[in-house]
Amino acid sequence: MRYQDKDYQTVWLENGRLFIIDQNQLPFEFTIIELHDIEQVYEAIKIMKVRGAPAIGAVAALGYALAIGKGEDIHRSYQLLLSSRPTAIDLQNGLDFVKQAIARQITGAGIKAAAIGAAQQFTDNIANECLLIGKYGNELIADNCRILTHCNAGALATVDYGTALAPMREAHYAGKNIFVYVDETRPRLQGMRLTAWELAQEGIDHAIIADNAAGYYMQQGKIDLVITGADRIARNGDIANKIGTYSKAVLAKENNIPFYIAAPFSTFYRQLLSGRDIPIEERPAEEVLTFNGVALSSGLSGALNPAFDITKAKYISGYITPAGIFNKKDFDKLWEMNIKVQNSGQI
Amino acid sequence: MRYQDKDYQTVWLENGRLFIIDQNQLPFEFTIIELHDIEQVYEAIKIMKVRGAPAIGAVAALGYALAIGKGEDIHRSYQLLLSSRPTAIDLQNGLDFVKQAIARQITGAGIKAAAIGAAQQFTDNIANECLLIGKYGNELIADNCRILTHCNAGALATVDYGTALAPMREAHYAGKNIFVYVDETRPRLQGMRLTAWELAQEGIDHAIIADNAAGYYMQQGKIDLVITGADRIARNGDIANKIGTYSKAVLAKENNIPFYIAAPFSTFYRQLLSGRDIPIEERPAEEVLTFNGVALSSGLSGALNPAFDITKAKYISGYITPAGIFNKKDFDKLWEMNIKVQNSGQI
Repeated sequence: MRYQDKDYQTVWLENGRLFIIDQNQLPFEFTIIELHDIEQVYEAIKIMKVRGAPAIGAVAALGYALAIGKGEDIHRSYQLLLSSRPTAIDLQNGLDFVKQAIARQITGAGIKAAAIGAAQQFTDNIANECLLIGKYGNELIADNCRILTHCNAGALATVDYGTALAPMREAHYAGKNIFVYVDETRPRLQGMRLTAWELAQEGIDHAIIADNAAGYYMQQGKIDLVITGADRIARNGDIANKIGTYSKAVLAKENNIPFYIAAPFSTFYRQLLSGRDIPIEERPAEEVLTFNGVALSSGLSGALNPAFDITKAKYISGYITPAGIFNKKDFDKLWEMNIKVQNSGQI
Repeated sequence: MRYQDKDYQTVWLENGRLFIIDQNQLPFEFTIIELHDIEQVYEAIKIMKVRGAPAIGAVAALGYALAIGKGEDIHRSYQLLLSSRPTAIDLQNGLDFVKQAIARQITGAGIKAAAIGAAQQFTDNIANECLLIGKYGNELIADNCRILTHCNAGALATVDYGTALAPMREAHYAGKNIFVYVDETRPRLQGMRLTAWELAQEGIDHAIIADNAAGYYMQQGKIDLVITGADRIARNGDIANKIGTYSKAVLAKENNIPFYIAAPFSTFYRQLLSGRDIPIEERPAEEVLTFNGVALSSGLSGALNPAFDITKAKYISGYITPAGIFNKKDFDKLWEMNIKVQNSGQI
């Protein structure tokens, strides 16, 4: 991700130290912070200084590996990080990737190096997979395409480049004229704060809209394609993603607009048969009732704040993955590919 | 509408002076302001100190009558007020109601009294009709009903009592246990600021949700009924209402949840054959990008801000009116009733 003529990743290791871009400060301030210990990693995920399923997976894997290197308890560290947020499966996949690498060490001597190596590989895989998602997803984007996206599934949500935003970057680099409708994505406004900021950095034409307006533009025939990311993809193709994704998928179907999910392999979870059993995080009411400490409501009313929803496979036109675009018909091939990738540790 | 042990209307005439509750200050401050001239009436509608289709109709009728009383140009006053906002037909209906009363005066002598009388009658009709909407709509609400509403269609949006909220008040007064999911209604947060405030004053159980969460609760089987107001109802039953209404209607249909529109006769417009030709107001981008002057976005991105959308009749289970509940089958009867009412000037 380019910012003021310099390339950044969202999460990275530098001389054995773990850094992130603080996403709670964006777009008002671009702040890099170091996470010094596993409690800070836990906290950064929980209060969403780092968010987006693949980025959560990467920071958890790196934080876990560093904790192991410092001699922290392997089991406790795993459980602490796993408990930071419930919905994105990349978190568990990242931790498991590191744990399995440790388990392969016969003696204890190589554990530290194995953990760091695995965490870095998991992180690099996500970045590389996002490039491939961009390459394949670009094929869906015609010249003059008007695309809707929800939440932030850009470089900030991954490690670099993005999932849903990767095809838009590719199309833009290829010289296609595109326009992106950016759902502001209440309550935390990741679309308004993060996606719009990323698109502005890239010079991609876009406008922020209230989440309420997406259906209107679909009805008006002004949206040709919807692409979002995902927090978890079940065996049958059901997905969990940011609250409001389900609504946009239903509206897209009603208006005959293709609706695609873009995700790296870290977001797939073949052990889960359907979306029914994906845990949905309930976040604090204050996220709805206040903005940066400013009250939006009277204080007389409470709020409910589910952070994700489930979109059933029947609403999804296809899945943009690092191994190509899959639909329900060739979904079994996707899972074979997924097993191969997760076993080999790379695409 | 009761506030701190006193009854208020949203808009009223007192000793020939026009007062409103300033809805831009709610829920933080309860402020009554006087509108001294027609320019102030125009401005109050335009910047939404008074909003909600029936309330706009009432304040326009009263403001128009006062302007005529002061000797302002009848044609210019009509055009000025009519241009304040484009979508709610109650505005035009209110102005026409006064204009027709003037036209019935043979000499100029009685014009002032006729104008004031007509404006007051138009205003009283809305309040009385809302009571009837409440009575009929209550029949749709079972004990333990969980209802979703969008925007504010309460006392503040009308003159008193409300349209969509009237049945909820009736059900509550009748001792039914109900729970209201309040769409916050971005960008202007009328649900969060106004509907939640009204429900809190009444002691009706409710929670504010992000607009994105409504589909989730429908999908979870936690919403039994949707009721919203309308800004204009066309001959074929298509309606215009606050942006996001269309999305909720599609989601309700997808989840087999009844979706009702509640409106007084001032919102009906039989001259318009379908929703296709209803003008949709585009409001300033700042309403999306800022809240009370606080920037929500980086300043690098623009926003689009359509204030209304069209919900086709096929998504609407029925219309809760002062003359009963109508569905598409008995819609012709509704229009006969409507003609009778508009000719007689009363229910």
